[in-house]
Amino acid sequence: SGADLENLVNEAALWGARVGHKAVKMDDFEAAKDKVLMGRERRSMVLTDEQKRNTAYHETGHVMVAKFIPGSDPIHKATIIPRGRSLGSTHFLPLDDRLTYSKSYCEATIAHLLGGRAADKIATGEPTTGAGDDIKKATALAKKMVCEWGMSDKIGPMTIGDKDENIFLGKEFGRSNNHSEDLTKLVDSEIRNIIEEQFQRCLKILSDNEPLLQTLANELLNKETLTGEEIDDIYQRYLNGKLKKEEKKQKSKSKKPQDIKDNGNDKS
Amino acid sequence: SGADLENLVNEAALWGARVGHKAVKMDDFEAAKDKVLMGRERRSMVLTDEQKRNTAYHETGHVMVAKFIPGSDPIHKATIIPRGRSLGSTHFLPLDDRLTYSKSYCEATIAHLLGGRAADKIATGEPTTGAGDDIKKATALAKKMVCEWGMSDKIGPMTIGDKDENIFLGKEFGRSNNHSEDLTKLVDSEIRNIIEEQFQRCLKILSDNEPLLQTLANELLNKETLTGEEIDDIYQRYLNGKLKKEEKKQKSKSKKPQDIKDNGNDKS
Amino acid sequence: SGADLENLVNEAALWGARVGHKAVKMDDFEAAKDKVLMGRERRSMVLTDEQKRNTAYHETGHVMVAKFIPGSDPIHKATIIPRGRSLGSTHFLPLDDRLTYSKSYCEATIAHLLGGRAADKIATGEPTTGAGDDIKKATALAKKMVCEWGMSDKIGPMTIGDKDENIFLGKEFGRSNNHSEDLTKLVDSEIRNIIEEQFQRCLKILSDNEPLLQTLANELLNKETLTGEEIDDIYQRYLNGKLKKEEKKQKSKSKKPQDIKDNGNDKS
Amino acid sequence: SGADLENLVNEAALWGARVGHKAVKMDDFEAAKDKVLMGRERRSMVLTDEQKRNTAYHETGHVMVAKFIPGSDPIHKATIIPRGRSLGSTHFLPLDDRLTYSKSYCEATIAHLLGGRAADKIATGEPTTGAGDDIKKATALAKKMVCEWGMSDKIGPMTIGDKDENIFLGKEFGRSNNHSEDLTKLVDSEIRNIIEEQFQRCLKILSDNEPLLQTLANELLNKETLTGEEIDDIYQRYLNGKLKKEEKKQKSKSKKPQDIKDNGNDKS
Amino acid sequence: SGADLENLVNEAALWGARVGHKAVKMDDFEAAKDKVLMGRERRSMVLTDEQKRNTAYHETGHVMVAKFIPGSDPIHKATIIPRGRSLGSTHFLPLDDRLTYSKSYCEATIAHLLGGRAADKIATGEPTTGAGDDIKKATALAKKMVCEWGMSDKIGPMTIGDKDENIFLGKEFGRSNNHSEDLTKLVDSEIRNIIEEQFQRCLKILSDNEPLLQTLANELLNKETLTGEEIDDIYQRYLNGKLKKEEKKQKSKSKKPQDIKDNGNDKS
Amino acid sequence: SGADLENLVNEAALWGARVGHKAVKMDDFEAAKDKVLMGRERRSMVLTDEQKRNTAYHETGHVMVAKFIPGSDPIHKATIIPRGRSLGSTHFLPLDDRLTYSKSYCEATIAHLLGGRAADKIATGEPTTGAGDDIKKATALAKKMVCEWGMSDKIGPMTIGDKDENIFLGKEFGRSNNHSEDLTKLVDSEIRNIIEEQFQRCLKILSDNEPLLQTLANELLNKETLTGEEIDDIYQRYLNGKLKKEEKKQKSKSKKPQDIKDNGNDKS
Repeated sequence: SGADLENLVNEAALWGARVGHKAVKMDDFEAAKDKVLMGRERRSMVLTDEQKRNTAYHETGHVMVAKFIPGSDPIHKATIIPRGRSLGSTHFLPLDDRLTYSKSYCEATIAHLLGGRAADKIATGEPTTGAGDDIKKATALAKKMVCEWGMSDKIGPMTIGDKDENIFLGKEFGRSNNHSEDLTKLVDSEIRNIIEEQFQRCLKILSDNEPLLQTLANELLNKETLTGEEIDDIYQRYLNGKLKKEEKKQKSKSKKPQDIKDNGNDKS
Repeated sequence: SGADLENLVNEAALWGARVGHKAVKMDDFEAAKDKVLMGRERRSMVLTDEQKRNTAYHETGHVMVAKFIPGSDPIHKATIIPRGRSLGSTHFLPLDDRLTYSKSYCEATIAHLLGGRAADKIATGEPTTGAGDDIKKATALAKKMVCEWGMSDKIGPMTIGDKDENIFLGKEFGRSNNHSEDLTKLVDSEIRNIIEEQFQRCLKILSDNEPLLQTLANELLNKETLTGEEIDDIYQRYLNGKLKKEEKKQKSKSKKPQDIKDNGNDKS
Repeated sequence: SGADLENLVNEAALWGARVGHKAVKMDDFEAAKDKVLMGRERRSMVLTDEQKRNTAYHETGHVMVAKFIPGSDPIHKATIIPRGRSLGSTHFLPLDDRLTYSKSYCEATIAHLLGGRAADKIATGEPTTGAGDDIKKATALAKKMVCEWGMSDKIGPMTIGDKDENIFLGKEFGRSNNHSEDLTKLVDSEIRNIIEEQFQRCLKILSDNEPLLQTLANELLNKETLTGEEIDDIYQRYLNGKLKKEEKKQKSKSKKPQDIKDNGNDKS
Repeated sequence: SGADLENLVNEAALWGARVGHKAVKMDDFEAAKDKVLMGRERRSMVLTDEQKRNTAYHETGHVMVAKFIPGSDPIHKATIIPRGRSLGSTHFLPLDDRLTYSKSYCEATIAHLLGGRAADKIATGEPTTGAGDDIKKATALAKKMVCEWGMSDKIGPMTIGDKDENIFLGKEFGRSNNHSEDLTKLVDSEIRNIIEEQFQRCLKILSDNEPLLQTLANELLNKETLTGEEIDDIYQRYLNGKLKKEEKKQKSKSKKPQDIKDNGNDKS
Repeated sequence: SGADLENLVNEAALWGARVGHKAVKMDDFEAAKDKVLMGRERRSMVLTDEQKRNTAYHETGHVMVAKFIPGSDPIHKATIIPRGRSLGSTHFLPLDDRLTYSKSYCEATIAHLLGGRAADKIATGEPTTGAGDDIKKATALAKKMVCEWGMSDKIGPMTIGDKDENIFLGKEFGRSNNHSEDLTKLVDSEIRNIIEEQFQRCLKILSDNEPLLQTLANELLNKETLTGEEIDDIYQRYLNGKLKKEEKKQKSKSKKPQDIKDNGNDKS
Repeated sequence: SGADLENLVNEAALWGARVGHKAVKMDDFEAAKDKVLMGRERRSMVLTDEQKRNTAYHETGHVMVAKFIPGSDPIHKATIIPRGRSLGSTHFLPLDDRLTYSKSYCEATIAHLLGGRAADKIATGEPTTGAGDDIKKATALAKKMVCEWGMSDKIGPMTIGDKDENIFLGKEFGRSNNHSEDLTKLVDSEIRNIIEEQFQRCLKILSDNEPLLQTLANELLNKETLTGEEIDDIYQRYLNGKLKKEEKKQKSKSKKPQDIKDNGNDKS
């Protein structure tokens, strides 16, 4: 309705101003629209401890999946300091400048992206809207694998749904591109299979190594940012079985990893 | 036809003027179009007692669903004083500024939205056009849960139907996005399930607590606006079983809650 | 073909001029196009007695359905004096300015709209193109009930097919809106059920009270316009059983109501 | 290809010039396009006798169907003198200026349109491209009967496929309008049934009265134009059984009606 | 990719220059695009003997089908001298300027068009891209027969898929035009049947008269252009059984007709 | 999201600059978009040995398929020196300037295109994104074979899905072009069959001659560019059985062909 429209524009302008945009951008509209749908007005930028804790688990999910999948690029840092619309982020440090990517590298990237949602599910039992962007990227990548890069064995080296457009004249060359229902179904199913397989891979990595998930999330919550070296250090100690012993020592003087949920407020 | 078109434009201009628009807006057209379809000319803004009573029930529906679902934000106020096209409204007071929302929070918001229609059904036995906007928002939210935020377990963390558009060139990057009939059917069914589940939740809350529905609607009809404190007070007394006893005392000196339907006119 | 196109433009210009349009409007094109399809050239505006008689039945259909459905707004007047493209019309006098409409009110409005076609069928046994506009409005209303206002119990409080458009950027926010064949079929069937139910309701009202249909149509044909009071008077007398007796008295000095079909030409 | 495109433009310009257009029109393109598809260059405008004969049968088909269907408007004239792209035409003289048309009048109009093709089939055994325009109009009319005027009993008084467009904003109000496959199938089948029924009606009229078809076509071929009076005269004589006797007398001094096929060239 | 795009533009510009276009045309893009897809750069315009031989068979296919189908227009000439993108062509000499075409004439035209491909198949056993334009025209014609000219008995005199567009307003009048899957299937099947039937007719004509195919192709290869008279001469001699005897005489001093495949290079 | 958008624009600008574009092109966006999806920042242009090795296999795939399919044009050169977005390329030297292509030539071209992906699969066991462009071209070619050039025997000489567009008016002539699900399915299946058949052909050629694949890839990796003569030399020696003997001699002083995977780094 009209009132909602006004809300939407106002919200978008406020978002734009806050993140330093000179003009209202598409992105600001998207943020504002979610707000209006939820029927809530934006107040201050003070994050609750619950949000910080959830973000710590989410970023740890990205980090751990990358550490456990061989051939992943090294992690530069992970942080829960919000920037723009994002409550946290994990940065990678690619070893080289690739022009082409292998199928397994594509799959690993999808897994990295879905690691956050997998951690949400394991740590808090509930998905959040925060993983929307990760899901969008993972889906786009899976779609390209199937439709553009011929990485589905069932479909083979064939392009699906390409528009065959003439860029100069702004219209298609000749033929329309509707595929049959049978082929569309196969494409949908191949994309879903890639997504599902990588998501199960994430869930397995995180649930098989839940102590590390707790330790890393706890550490990230305390320090707000972890460098690749710090992450690697914790990861190596965990792998070497050292983690377990150190945990026992620390248990007397500090809180337990699982305390993170209830005692979040006594940090800072 | 042409005559209808003239009506439509005139109605839209009148709406625009009344709600203070400098130019005729899309919103005004929508309002005018419903009028023309109904074949009625707009007269004065005097509301009938029946409309006020129905609005009181409708707003009470929003209020009660929010009170009974744990984790809902506090209510700021509820009112049946009309503003713009809306006969009444319920305002919330969010505890914090969230950037992400959990699945249960999304479900609760859908329930708040559908609470009005649920109250209409229980109190007057008949749906009205007034819930159209609530339904639109609830559907948009359910759709985002399934298609954007990966909150359907049957579909998983996968984006559905995204346009993959190039904003600068104003057209899509490459591929069209038609999904198979099977997947479309699953999406439709998941969205409907979310809506249906939350609507049943509303109906249960309201029918299990019909005395409170009557009391709150009656109170809202008398005072036209109830603050969050006033609502909370009535809610707490009802929960503490005090409501029942007070009702009995009041029955001798005032009208019964169910009288609201017939005696609406004796309020000033 | 080209010749047809010329006809079309000429016809449209003539229509526009006749109904006082400064520029040719869409509406004029529609009128002209039907003419061209029929292969007939427009001549004078003299209506045949048959057309007047059919119009009298048609308007009486609108009137009677409104009189027999409780909660309908009062009728202001009914007329068979042509205006613009319309051969006659029935005007209502709404009791109040509603912002929302109940499901039963929507159903009654659909019935009022279909009353004309129902009368055509009963009185002349044959549908005409004249009911096209009524049918269009009734269908649009039934569609809104199902798709926008959540008034179908089988579908529930869910919006169907909304475009989710960004008005400022002139394009959709993200997702396409194709529904599955199953849901589309259910929507079609719910809309058809509403239309069919109200049309049967009209047919029943009119055939159960055919003497009143004949009396009212006859009266409308003689006077060309009937006020709400005149209509109400005839309606009340019919209901009180007075009509029957008066009919018998009048039979000797005037023509019988059913004569209307054959003796239409002896009115001045 | 490019060469074809050049042909197309040249042909279109030639057509436009011949029929007196200042600029090339859509219509000219259509004519030119058929020429190019056929791979033929246009030469002179001299018609063969075979074409004249076929046209005489075609126009007679329109005339006879109109004469035998009660309630058809009188015929003004029929001619086989070519004008623009048309080799002949039949003009009607409507009795009054109707604003609405009955279902039976619509059906009769469809029959008049299909009468030409029916005559082609009976007289020459072969359809030609010349009936394309008649078929287009008949189909458009049958479609409007079903989708706009509610004249299909199986579908009822319901609008199908209307766009619900906002003319000022140049886009649709809200909802898309896709119907289910089931309803679309029913609509297709109802339209086809109307067309088929009227075409069979034409075939029956013409084959039951083939002697009149031969006489009228012969007369039209000789005189090139027949007035309504001349047509009516022949028709009445045929009906009165006079035709048969006159035929026998004329057989000795002139050619037989069926000679038209073989002796077309001996007329001046 | 970008490099391909550059190739495409360059190729198109070269094509345009060669065929004398002042600006790059759509047609040039099409030619260029096929080149780029094939991954080949254009060099000189010297045709191989194999291409000339294949073209001779192809044009002979067009010629023979026209000679053997009664009612075909006379042939003006056939040539294998390339012009523009076309390696050869066959020109007809229509007897009169028709405004309408019979069904059998349409079928014959489709057969003439497909004669080239049929000859390719019989003479070289392999289809080439050169018949693309013939196939496009034959399909467009078959489609018009079924969808526009009512020439399919199974569908009847009904227009399929017409857009019903308003040329002045640039948009459709009212209704969308989607047909049911059942009708679309029938249309596809009727179009395919017409094509298939005419293609089989071509194959039969050519294989029943393969000696004539060899003789005509050989003659065309030697002279590069054959006039209608020359073609007719060879055709008549073949029919009169003279061909056979002359062949025997010539066998001693010249090469056999089937030698054309292997000895193509010894012609100057 | 907004941040991604900024990344996308920046990446595109960088790409454009590097490959010498004055303005950002579509192509640059595509490259940038893949980068952003992968979540990697571009660094330097130093290629890893693994990438060079994989490229060597890939180009060898193109080369070998062309050598083993009779009638292929000669190879000009193959190189693994990157240019633009491409890591390597294989250039052909067409013998003549063809205007038409036979079916077998089209099939061979598809095979040449898919040879790279086939080599990836055999040599490294894993597909990469690098074959995306080859797949796109092969699919477009297979589609043209089926839909434009009538090269599918099951469908016959019929154009599928052509738009029948009027270039001057910028819209379609008349009819829409939706095909039935049955025909669309057949088209999809015919295109897939062509692709699948040629891909299997590639796999067979490469696996039947794996020693040559190893030799050629090794040679290409060492010299970075191989001329057509050098390739032909190796190919002929392999065919003459000489290769096998020479290999044995060289084994003592140089590395074995299969060493290429592990010892890539010891080349300068």
